[in-house]
Amino acid sequence: MDFLKKRILEGATFIPPDIIKVDMFLNHLIDVDLLNEIGREFCDRFSDKMEKINKILTIEASGIGISCIAAQYFSVPVLFAKKGQNKNVGQNTYSASVFSFTKNKSFEVFVSKNYLGPEDHVLIIDDFLANGEAVRGLMSIVDQAGATLEGVGIVIEKGFQDGGAKLRSEGVRIESLALIKGIEDGKPIFADM
Amino acid sequence: MDFLKKRILEGATFIPPDIIKVDMFLNHLIDVDLLNEIGREFCDRFSDKMEKINKILTIEASGIGISCIAAQYFSVPVLFAKKGQNKNVGQNTYSASVFSFTKNKSFEVFVSKNYLGPEDHVLIIDDFLANGEAVRGLMSIVDQAGATLEGVGIVIEKGFQDGGAKLRSEGVRIESLALIKGIEDGKPIFADM
Repeated sequence: MDFLKKRILEGATFIPPDIIKVDMFLNHLIDVDLLNEIGREFCDRFSDKMEKINKILTIEASGIGISCIAAQYFSVPVLFAKKGQNKNVGQNTYSASVFSFTKNKSFEVFVSKNYLGPEDHVLIIDDFLANGEAVRGLMSIVDQAGATLEGVGIVIEKGFQDGGAKLRSEGVRIESLALIKGIEDGKPIFADM
Repeated sequence: MDFLKKRILEGATFIPPDIIKVDMFLNHLIDVDLLNEIGREFCDRFSDKMEKINKILTIEASGIGISCIAAQYFSVPVLFAKKGQNKNVGQNTYSASVFSFTKNKSFEVFVSKNYLGPEDHVLIIDDFLANGEAVRGLMSIVDQAGATLEGVGIVIEKGFQDGGAKLRSEGVRIESLALIKGIEDGKPIFADM
């Protein structure tokens, strides 16, 4: 994961108290070569689960590119939870409410019941883990479907917020490629991993 | 593009009068192998522009996966227009208003001025072209940036709506991998391409 720490140190900007801005390579302008390194790393981290995982579940929008590139290493399809129920998803859905601290509001996410069921073994992937709201929403959908959660892959975890710690204490396997435990003088402090 | 016609014939569903539902492989559950075939096809179609195109521009959410996989064949980054201006994008943006017929409302899309400028040669990619609203929004952003539009790559064009015809009449180069000119008895009629 040194490639990612390097990229964060060189490129990211930090806005107090808790914004880590990576829109220059991860969630607005997307460096697809970097996504390939991330995808390979997720594949390594979950190599013991490769035979089980048959679907990657993510949430629009920033998780989609990361998941699609990673899916090439797992040879599985990607399913993304949609914000808003529209004609393309239909009425037959699982749903969960997710509070976004970035946008300061709750929104509902939807997944069609056609594409997730008890036979599925799911890897959840997302760009950030902070308070854990998005991951919990996706976990609820996995649960509603009767599917099995095999793990959660996160690109950047904000270790100074408690989502990751709480989820791990509940037995959820989370692999975060970069774990930032704090920001000092405008620079990230990485946890030893 | 036969792979795509085949997939549409086998998998898509058609809801009168104009909904082509491809959420089982393209815009909800995503078949990443199919996206790779689509990416290679875009690369073939725009092979004469390969040396110029330095950025793929798309719009969240359905365009992101398609664009990220295609970007691997062009060796360029992806920039996606965001629906809603949030802390991650900042205030220094280009914006455009896009009317969504699927959701029956207008929304604003934003692109940070940091990532698009006069030096850029842009390929726009999206999943659908119908009335052309999303493509026009993205073209407006390319124009605001002083960038050069090299072409538009579309997975499925609804030829029975007039977005593509109007854009072509204005000189925009559009490559649609599947052009559906009508739906009869619940089956698509493909245009000869």
